[in-house]
Amino acid sequence: MIIILKAANQAEAIVDLQKHFGDHTDVFVHNNRVAIVGAKESDLTAAEQAAAEEIIMQHPAAVQSSRLFHPEDTVINLAHTIIGGGHFSLSAGPCSVESAEHVRKMAAVAKAGGATLLRGGAFKPRTSPYSFQGLEEDGLKFLRAAADEQGMDMITEVMDEMHVDMVNEYTDVFQIGARNMQNFSLLKAVGKMRKPVLLKRGMSGTIDDLMNAAEYIAAGGNTQIMLCERGIRTFDNKYTRNTFDVGAVSVLHELTHFPVIVDPSHAMGHTDLVTPMAVAGTAAGADGVVVEIHDDPAHAFSDGAQALKPDQFMEMAKRVQAVEALVAGWREEA
Amino acid sequence: MIIILKAANQAEAIVDLQKHFGDHTDVFVHNNRVAIVGAKESDLTAAEQAAAEEIIMQHPAAVQSSRLFHPEDTVINLAHTIIGGGHFSLSAGPCSVESAEHVRKMAAVAKAGGATLLRGGAFKPRTSPYSFQGLEEDGLKFLRAAADEQGMDMITEVMDEMHVDMVNEYTDVFQIGARNMQNFSLLKAVGKMRKPVLLKRGMSGTIDDLMNAAEYIAAGGNTQIMLCERGIRTFDNKYTRNTFDVGAVSVLHELTHFPVIVDPSHAMGHTDLVTPMAVAGTAAGADGVVVEIHDDPAHAFSDGAQALKPDQFMEMAKRVQAVEALVAGWREEA
Amino acid sequence: MIIILKAANQAEAIVDLQKHFGDHTDVFVHNNRVAIVGAKESDLTAAEQAAAEEIIMQHPAAVQSSRLFHPEDTVINLAHTIIGGGHFSLSAGPCSVESAEHVRKMAAVAKAGGATLLRGGAFKPRTSPYSFQGLEEDGLKFLRAAADEQGMDMITEVMDEMHVDMVNEYTDVFQIGARNMQNFSLLKAVGKMRKPVLLKRGMSGTIDDLMNAAEYIAAGGNTQIMLCERGIRTFDNKYTRNTFDVGAVSVLHELTHFPVIVDPSHAMGHTDLVTPMAVAGTAAGADGVVVEIHDDPAHAFSDGAQALKPDQFMEMAKRVQAVEALVAGWREEA
Amino acid sequence: MIIILKAANQAEAIVDLQKHFGDHTDVFVHNNRVAIVGAKESDLTAAEQAAAEEIIMQHPAAVQSSRLFHPEDTVINLAHTIIGGGHFSLSAGPCSVESAEHVRKMAAVAKAGGATLLRGGAFKPRTSPYSFQGLEEDGLKFLRAAADEQGMDMITEVMDEMHVDMVNEYTDVFQIGARNMQNFSLLKAVGKMRKPVLLKRGMSGTIDDLMNAAEYIAAGGNTQIMLCERGIRTFDNKYTRNTFDVGAVSVLHELTHFPVIVDPSHAMGHTDLVTPMAVAGTAAGADGVVVEIHDDPAHAFSDGAQALKPDQFMEMAKRVQAVEALVAGWREEA
Repeated sequence: MIIILKAANQAEAIVDLQKHFGDHTDVFVHNNRVAIVGAKESDLTAAEQAAAEEIIMQHPAAVQSSRLFHPEDTVINLAHTIIGGGHFSLSAGPCSVESAEHVRKMAAVAKAGGATLLRGGAFKPRTSPYSFQGLEEDGLKFLRAAADEQGMDMITEVMDEMHVDMVNEYTDVFQIGARNMQNFSLLKAVGKMRKPVLLKRGMSGTIDDLMNAAEYIAAGGNTQIMLCERGIRTFDNKYTRNTFDVGAVSVLHELTHFPVIVDPSHAMGHTDLVTPMAVAGTAAGADGVVVEIHDDPAHAFSDGAQALKPDQFMEMAKRVQAVEALVAGWREEA
Repeated sequence: MIIILKAANQAEAIVDLQKHFGDHTDVFVHNNRVAIVGAKESDLTAAEQAAAEEIIMQHPAAVQSSRLFHPEDTVINLAHTIIGGGHFSLSAGPCSVESAEHVRKMAAVAKAGGATLLRGGAFKPRTSPYSFQGLEEDGLKFLRAAADEQGMDMITEVMDEMHVDMVNEYTDVFQIGARNMQNFSLLKAVGKMRKPVLLKRGMSGTIDDLMNAAEYIAAGGNTQIMLCERGIRTFDNKYTRNTFDVGAVSVLHELTHFPVIVDPSHAMGHTDLVTPMAVAGTAAGADGVVVEIHDDPAHAFSDGAQALKPDQFMEMAKRVQAVEALVAGWREEA
Repeated sequence: MIIILKAANQAEAIVDLQKHFGDHTDVFVHNNRVAIVGAKESDLTAAEQAAAEEIIMQHPAAVQSSRLFHPEDTVINLAHTIIGGGHFSLSAGPCSVESAEHVRKMAAVAKAGGATLLRGGAFKPRTSPYSFQGLEEDGLKFLRAAADEQGMDMITEVMDEMHVDMVNEYTDVFQIGARNMQNFSLLKAVGKMRKPVLLKRGMSGTIDDLMNAAEYIAAGGNTQIMLCERGIRTFDNKYTRNTFDVGAVSVLHELTHFPVIVDPSHAMGHTDLVTPMAVAGTAAGADGVVVEIHDDPAHAFSDGAQALKPDQFMEMAKRVQAVEALVAGWREEA
Repeated sequence: MIIILKAANQAEAIVDLQKHFGDHTDVFVHNNRVAIVGAKESDLTAAEQAAAEEIIMQHPAAVQSSRLFHPEDTVINLAHTIIGGGHFSLSAGPCSVESAEHVRKMAAVAKAGGATLLRGGAFKPRTSPYSFQGLEEDGLKFLRAAADEQGMDMITEVMDEMHVDMVNEYTDVFQIGARNMQNFSLLKAVGKMRKPVLLKRGMSGTIDDLMNAAEYIAAGGNTQIMLCERGIRTFDNKYTRNTFDVGAVSVLHELTHFPVIVDPSHAMGHTDLVTPMAVAGTAAGADGVVVEIHDDPAHAFSDGAQALKPDQFMEMAKRVQAVEALVAGWREEA
């Protein structure tokens, strides 16, 4: 149940509802809206009903993630980056952090193309246990240093709750990978932090699954969440690694206030398909694009086949920014 | 096998290859390239080998559809429309032709937004036998008259080979619907015609299936083919009718020379999602967009939920054209 | 709307309903049940309401296919075969009819294993136009002769409405292939015939799609329909051609009265996986199994990789029959 | 690379290979087979090559999971249960442990039907953070007590590495849930334990993904692994929760030596579909069946819609055992 409160005596009504419901269910407040998990209209006292401008019973299970509870866009503010609410951002970096030197070089490329967030993996979720698993804490240090050198924000994946504190020492944004979208223990752990989280959609995650996964983070009190479309599993996977579900950008923008980022690198898996999908995602209204870059893809520690070379990245960035300028104009008209 | 012939004595080499292979397999010629279905390099005589600049053994089964056989873009020329090779087109119209008057009205809207092709269904492939099945020949007449009145080209679906001749009397472009993508008898029938065909991708058609379906048409001698991405079936269908596979636009552009059109109406199934996907498809480089329009969607004979109202269509057209202008610039730079 | 009539004056009530509704919508009668397409309860006169024992408003669009309209199992009776209502049948034969001699040989194998239906393709829906397309009418003749020689019934695919009459001259059962599940013109054409139809589920056909496709046939008056699960398209296709949706057997048995056959050959695409799936489908309650057999799979004209050799077929048949004996016992207990 | 050693001097050859490769890559030994991760044939010395009966270069990345490395079936031995290598087992219990009393009651039902493993969730991976999350350690205690009372083995899910030690104090088998199939940190954690693991296939996990996930466990030294097919995500989800991929049972039995269990409860999601799928999975050769049971499904804490009532479970068990008796006979003949 979401209650939209009348203007008069709002603060008192909120206190009252929290007192009434707060010790046996979850109660969330956003401006003049109060969400009470699992409550029925008949649970409300006459006074509580009188305080309500409107009572919404039909809402997603992921109530905090819903625009019915939080109509305006969430805006994520970092030192060098603003995402959401009309603010567009570009993230780039190598798939894996490979060395201090290499990631510094990639950071310079990312910055030159207009990226304000530096991405790179220190803990890598690899399909095979015998593949490179990441530089771990060294990787975090190298990435932090490279981001600082360029005046960028840092984003990196955390794969389990035992590493949340360690990753927290270095990063500006936690990334939850697609394979962990429903690792509920990890979602709860980052929900306790007070740093933004980029939550990637699982390969077979429905829109509702993604909203509910975000809700796990929000339920812990951390509502600085970005969602990421990175391709889904379908029957057609001969020419692309996944199917880029660009429609999810528009659907999510209707349902939720969280910014939506697209990751065309993982969606497609082939360099030549990354730029058109970055552009398509931007045209669909994405709040940001994250891509993998590498100066020598053939020798990348991971996922070289989908990395943009520096000049390809510069061209992609130029195109994405040109489309974003158009989209920004349409947003203002609307 | 595709043989790229040397410049010298090309005409003779072609005649020779046709004589040698033409009565026991399919031989296709495009400029200096000769495709011989099922042949092995050792089947060639010494003279034939000597005439070859290059012999390509690794090519798609859909050889005529492949850029290896036909490197440059196919361009479709109609009275009022050019599609492919950098030429972009807009098609619009009602899902079903409902009456002479209504389709005239919709044609005027389509034209006003910049569409040069008028679409409308006279034979409707409906899931249930008890749903409206189309006005049949009357529908064809009404659509033709409306197109002529506006100076537009006409496109309409043909559902079976028995109606090919009738539809041919009226239409400028045959449309093959998604459910008939692998109706091989129908593909062969339109392959015998000499009018362009818009071939829609089946709901579970792979890229290779689509190429092979096009090849059925080309094998009959009709190479005026456009391919259409209209959404595929995936696990997520709560908020959209299908999943719009925008990546297919880029993949197809690499593999085949045929123009690629996107149909965001059927892909999404909800009006509010059509415009962003039209824009995204254009940004990905589509050669055209086809959408459904209706002035009173709530009372449309079919698919009202996905029809754009006239003002929504005008806004969509404006955005699509703005993005297409950017893409055209990138094409020229490349 | 489905009306279940009271015992008294049933015949009059049926005549009355047909008179009232029959000239502006579809009215179907099965024993004491009358289905009126698109009617609302308020459309009924007081007398019509009084004649009703029960009025069912919530039913599938595919009303004739539904058990709500036709509770008891449909039983298909052929000269040598009974299918449905507890009667189990085995169909076997080569993918393509290759020659008179070969199909006679295969018919003898099929018969020896207990098959009463001989299958074989004379018109082949092949992905590529350059693959073998079938022996056409010669194939039909050879298959008919082989079936007659063994005292078996014949089943073969019809690919388009133009061939319905020709195929009808030879076959006992029309097969509609997966790619034509929603070729509505073809469905209407076989709906006008009075011979059983085996309708294969499309690769991305939902249960509802399959029911509605069957309804197209039933709407024409032909209710001798069998449904066939033959594998669906999913994300996992490395080790199998399709995913065998054995659960569809049970779901269909709940929803519809038509017999359900399983085709493990096309579902799996590899010989070694055919027998366990034939057994699994039988265990799930299928009314029949259809498989492809070949004495020399490596040289089969089509689909050799999934054909059972004669001894493999005999072993499969033995296992299927052993499981069917168990299932028959459970049916009787229920 | 897998080396099959000659009989002579095997022990020395193994020591030699471990010395040569063991400190820079993973080396695994099974009887006369040695797997060396990432090695090339040219890395072997002449003596090493001479010791080899056969060298297998083409093998799955999941080398320890492969039958090429470990040809014979893995057999899991518990106090009350043997699984694999022709030994079939039945697991049953409530979805969630609800109380000490309730789980005792369900254990008695499970035992009466022939189950030797008692299942029940103490930590529940729920889609929504506001759903019941399990009784945690109390649940473990109740389940242990109930299993002990009935002389059964216990299996329960562990959701994250922080709980591995706690769960280890109580359980006989660790269960890894579908959503955690690629939670690589958790897989590594149970890989360090020396207790059997039931690894459930993820909703979009391919066969190869599942094999690689198992390999993560095996890479830590724990090779007591069972794989579980529990339904995959496909386009058709109106009548079933997932699509039961019964073919995976046969495919996995070809590729890997680990036992394969089927979970028809989660695959189907509806009670009436559980029994036919349990039977179908057994007919396909599964090494075990795991189902959810509840005496009052309407009030179950979770997943009541798919729970079998005691009498339904008894009937299912009877049928499964009848089919397993047939399959056991076929196994012996083979």
